[in-house]
Amino acid sequence: MPVVAVIGDGQLARMMQTEAIELGVETRVLASNDDASAAQVFGDVRLGDYTVLEHLRAVVDGADAVTFDHEHVPNEYAQLLIDDGVTVEPRPEALIYAQDKLEQRKRLAEAGLPVPAFAAVESVADAEVFWDETGGQVCLKATRGGYDGHGVWFPATREECAELVEELLGRDLPLMAEQKVAFTRELSAMVARNRSGDVRAWPVVESRQDGGICRVAIAPAPNMSAELAERCEELAVRVAEGLGVTGVLAVELFEFEGENGPEVSVNELAMRPHNTGHWTQDGCVTSQFEQHLRAVLDWPLGAVDRCAPATVMVNTLGGEEDPDTPMSERVIAVMRKYPQVKVHLYGKDHRPGRKMGHVNVNADTVDEALAIAEDAAHYIINATWKD
Amino acid sequence: MPVVAVIGDGQLARMMQTEAIELGVETRVLASNDDASAAQVFGDVRLGDYTVLEHLRAVVDGADAVTFDHEHVPNEYAQLLIDDGVTVEPRPEALIYAQDKLEQRKRLAEAGLPVPAFAAVESVADAEVFWDETGGQVCLKATRGGYDGHGVWFPATREECAELVEELLGRDLPLMAEQKVAFTRELSAMVARNRSGDVRAWPVVESRQDGGICRVAIAPAPNMSAELAERCEELAVRVAEGLGVTGVLAVELFEFEGENGPEVSVNELAMRPHNTGHWTQDGCVTSQFEQHLRAVLDWPLGAVDRCAPATVMVNTLGGEEDPDTPMSERVIAVMRKYPQVKVHLYGKDHRPGRKMGHVNVNADTVDEALAIAEDAAHYIINATWKD
Ligand SMILES: Nc1ncnc2c1ncn2[C@@H]1O[C@H](COP(=O)(O)OP(=O)(O)OP(=O)(O)O)[C@@H](O)[C@H]1O
Ligand SMILES: Nc1ncnc2c1ncn2[C@@H]1O[C@H](COP(=O)(O)OP(=O)(O)OP(=O)(O)O)[C@@H](O)[C@H]1O
Repeated sequence: MPVVAVIGDGQLARMMQTEAIELGVETRVLASNDDASAAQVFGDVRLGDYTVLEHLRAVVDGADAVTFDHEHVPNEYAQLLIDDGVTVEPRPEALIYAQDKLEQRKRLAEAGLPVPAFAAVESVADAEVFWDETGGQVCLKATRGGYDGHGVWFPATREECAELVEELLGRDLPLMAEQKVAFTRELSAMVARNRSGDVRAWPVVESRQDGGICRVAIAPAPNMSAELAERCEELAVRVAEGLGVTGVLAVELFEFEGENGPEVSVNELAMRPHNTGHWTQDGCVTSQFEQHLRAVLDWPLGAVDRCAPATVMVNTLGGEEDPDTPMSERVIAVMRKYPQVKVHLYGKDHRPGRKMGHVNVNADTVDEALAIAEDAAHYIINATWKD
Repeated sequence: MPVVAVIGDGQLARMMQTEAIELGVETRVLASNDDASAAQVFGDVRLGDYTVLEHLRAVVDGADAVTFDHEHVPNEYAQLLIDDGVTVEPRPEALIYAQDKLEQRKRLAEAGLPVPAFAAVESVADAEVFWDETGGQVCLKATRGGYDGHGVWFPATREECAELVEELLGRDLPLMAEQKVAFTRELSAMVARNRSGDVRAWPVVESRQDGGICRVAIAPAPNMSAELAERCEELAVRVAEGLGVTGVLAVELFEFEGENGPEVSVNELAMRPHNTGHWTQDGCVTSQFEQHLRAVLDWPLGAVDRCAPATVMVNTLGGEEDPDTPMSERVIAVMRKYPQVKVHLYGKDHRPGRKMGHVNVNADTVDEALAIAEDAAHYIINATWKD
């Protein structure tokens, strides 16, 4: 059986490991420390730094495929590994579009895919021109290195915009501007593509963010026409094929009111299992973590049929304070009240806002699943029920 | 979060680990060697021997609960650990009835539960008396140490029976005899019970054995009246409660034609996750492995609703010869033909008859699930399709 090396030690690597165990796939992880979320649960843990080529070379040695739980491995190193003969998936030619928002916007626009109006910002003047063109509907973004809403700004006035750009450029942050979209909600269209080019799309989900962090995913996205759902799935397939992505791809979308009803445009790409896909662990025949492994190994992809009419995922983000009630007591209370809730925890210590885990709930209706999942997550975070 | 120590390094421990990871429960395993099925996938592996008290003491030190993937830990050692203040589940007072078939028969009969006629066999004369009483319908069993049909004999004649008993007693094997049941099929009724006494029963399944090894489990058991299904489930609950079992309990049953239709009697008890419960991984809201962890930690038990109308599990037992086609190629072929098949592999090298893995298939009908699961398992074993 093949060996997969995973670069990155967070919860995504951790959850790949549970699927790898069941599939009998051997794994290793490159982790920053022994106590990292994934390092706790891999049999073969290599401590090191993903920005150090020798550490990468050591962990990938003899692996049949190498993949990531984040997009921050320097592309030149990924390329050197490929030159060594290693199978690295997704490949840097694709990954660049998940790493650099400006390159991504350009590439998607070229391919005729819907993206908000955008411009590179290399000077205050660039930003001012864009401000005037869009009537002040401006969202500034660091083209690289942003995550969970870090690296996204909404200046309220032309002056604030100019000052912000001056400051950010002064810090050598590569910048872009894009039109602020008056979106009605956010969606996520996820697909997996293997090296041979097979693609499978999960049903598109609604995702709800809090301060830039995904907090809730609702599958399938409620109140959506079959036609629009299909369009979103096709769009994600086109992105996966157009960019040659292997593994799981999440296409984060804005839904907004167009002239003839709801429309979508692309917000962001992620080339790995994604928070908006955690529901697949309990709501789908093949979870995103299993599918990712199959895809990067170039195995045939699994069925993506749903297991229930509705599945809701709610993240358990560390609260402002960690309640005195120990986590195990909170889990017990949730399990007692809701025998159907699936609790997933990442083995992380408390930090406010930190992704510590999530719950998944299947039910006959979205409303029922959402109410239970929200209440359960609320208890895990706060040791109090929602109402 | 609590720490669970698992004694035993086989596939049952391995599959507990995948659930422990998702629950955020910390684990350790006492393994005989680094390459054992479970040792490959635990972060914390302690090498040692479960018949050596010091090795047991080392792995349980500081654990919140200790459990097993087999029933062979000497009870006096389990008791010493309990005397040390360790939470060992299931407890030796219950475990004895999974270890000693004669004690089990006595206890179940006392409780009024249906078991075949039986007798202790301490001499050839004992066996001959039982032979005559049952009209030669005799099954001889080692009271301890049997597994997968090892330790079960069906002598064809009174003389053969006498010779066998003489030989086995000469080898100091503790023996019993029981009536050979003309069963129409075998069933398995599984429940979990936590330390506080909560019990949940999974739907009773049909199990099909091959040479004493479970090969197929069909959930729910087809062609069974709701009344009999309920009776089986109640019987398993009574056993769990009567014996004070904690964790998962499998009650293996014989179904036979009684005077007023199908009846059942108990064949065997297992106090741990069981082969006939592997279907729950993909066919049930809460798998037997998650439920076992919850039960031994005294957490509330999870819902046992089914995810599909029918789920079939087929073991992939090592064939007479290991095909030249590597295992990964076989898995690929199965995944290509059947995107809905869930492949589970235990990381074991080939040996004829060895439990190497299993497949689970959900479908709308038993026939469909069975046909797919049998074909998929056949390919994984032989690298050829069934027909
Ligand atoms: N063009 C836009 N118009 C309106 N809101 C936007 C726009 N771009 C981003 N946002 C808001 O900011 C949030 C974070 O943006 P984005 O997803 O690009 O950031 P990120 O840091 O890369 O986050 P993620 O971790 O989700 O990839 C979005 O979820 C959305 O709420
Ligand atoms: N009383 C009986 N009458 C008829 N067949 C029997 C009887 N007892 C056992 N068998 C047959 O022998 C098989 C193995 O018996 P049993 O389950 O007791 O053995 P075991 O070695 O403990 O197996 P397991 O691993 O399933 O616990 C049974 O599945 C059944 O087919």
